[in-house]
Amino acid sequence: MASPGDLTVRSGRVKVARRLATRAFRVKTGEFLAEGPQAVREALAEPGVVIEVFATVDATERYPELADQAETWHVVTDDVVAEIADSVTPQGLVARCHSVLTTIEDIPEDARLVLVCAEIRDPGNLGAVIRCADAAGAAGVIVAGESVDPLNPKVVRATAGSLFHLPIAVEDDVDAVIAELQSRGVQVLAADGAGETGLFDPDLDLAAPTAWMMGNEAHGLPDAWSALADRVVHVPILGRAESLNLATAAAVCLYSSAREQG
Amino acid sequence: MASPGDLTVRSGRVKVARRLATRAFRVKTGEFLAEGPQAVREALAEPGVVIEVFATVDATERYPELADQAETWHVVTDDVVAEIADSVTPQGLVARCHSVLTTIEDIPEDARLVLVCAEIRDPGNLGAVIRCADAAGAAGVIVAGESVDPLNPKVVRATAGSLFHLPIAVEDDVDAVIAELQSRGVQVLAADGAGETGLFDPDLDLAAPTAWMMGNEAHGLPDAWSALADRVVHVPILGRAESLNLATAAAVCLYSSAREQG
Repeated sequence: MASPGDLTVRSGRVKVARRLATRAFRVKTGEFLAEGPQAVREALAEPGVVIEVFATVDATERYPELADQAETWHVVTDDVVAEIADSVTPQGLVARCHSVLTTIEDIPEDARLVLVCAEIRDPGNLGAVIRCADAAGAAGVIVAGESVDPLNPKVVRATAGSLFHLPIAVEDDVDAVIAELQSRGVQVLAADGAGETGLFDPDLDLAAPTAWMMGNEAHGLPDAWSALADRVVHVPILGRAESLNLATAAAVCLYSSAREQG
Repeated sequence: MASPGDLTVRSGRVKVARRLATRAFRVKTGEFLAEGPQAVREALAEPGVVIEVFATVDATERYPELADQAETWHVVTDDVVAEIADSVTPQGLVARCHSVLTTIEDIPEDARLVLVCAEIRDPGNLGAVIRCADAAGAAGVIVAGESVDPLNPKVVRATAGSLFHLPIAVEDDVDAVIAELQSRGVQVLAADGAGETGLFDPDLDLAAPTAWMMGNEAHGLPDAWSALADRVVHVPILGRAESLNLATAAAVCLYSSAREQG
């Protein structure tokens, strides 16, 4: 039977983990938190990612296979997990992890489907579109411009494990990202409700290697970036809705490409 | 210049409006609340829906065209709007409305695309899929079984106006809904990650009149209902994601049909 060890909410390593709630400390340390059994399981599946796991007695007994996989597994009281975790219900498990973020060089040269997130600010939205990109078989996601940090606990949670499945590149310079993709022969399609080309237009070649660029939910894509894209494409609104939300628009675009790429 | 009238948080009509936050009172009165400028604008566009609008001085000055359209427009203090509204930021506007819900008879006989929501419990999810159905040109939505009330303020908000755009039928009996749709010659496709048929399978006829049945996010569709459907269809997961979330899966299914129905 597991029993809580000596760590308390005042222990140094608990305080360090707690500070990973802030972006500044994540950037400084190159570490982040994965919360809950799904995220911890996916993190443990990637070699060298998990530094240590904090788990309640209950969680340790419920997930013995995870405890076996972790090099460092601290059995702690419920209040220690609650102190570290961002989410209200981390289900007794939080892992301190090395960053899994990368740069555009790690997106394979021969990638046929890529998602570029340009200045997405809402953590739930960024997580949801990363999950969509993974589901649709994208080779990578590029988080570009002043976006929310993909290692924000709310993003990590919303990706439902997908954060660990494909390269997530962070790049400040959106113009350079577009140029790099185009130099690789990847067409850059900017998704925008005001785009001239409809997603179902027969002259849109969705079978070609494609990067979908999705913008901020509230403000869309800045004109300067749309102008650099090969096409600006709208998802047709066939009823009376004003628009689709970001994640649903991304899902429709990415799956339309996936279907044509067969 | 508008100035607040005599209504206070203790006024009878304010208390009545406040009670519409509960499902029991919505059912009893056949009324509900639309909050914020977008929802109020869409509600006013439907004749006979809006009973009265509560608006702050600021909102009255910012939206004169809405004040002109409303038969009864109460200028009130900020705390009256805050008292009535469910949302934290109703932007100074709340309308008391007659229910816009209907039954399956109001879904046109010749409908080619319908969404059936079977026991969706999360308000944000139900609102998001109603919005998707509207965008994809569905002729109506059927909210079936023990679902969240479509007039729940969080659902209304998440539909982003689509609640007012197409018939939203509420039906308790899912079996009867499936039978009625099939008797009309509409194929019922149950969306389920475990479905035998892939969405892109060439023998799936997405051009035919179709009702997509989406289940509860956590538990999926009960086997009994999937068994009644013409096909159980999965959205292919091409990467390593475990699944898509409900709204993104609905968007991909509905738009795949819309595209083929052209």
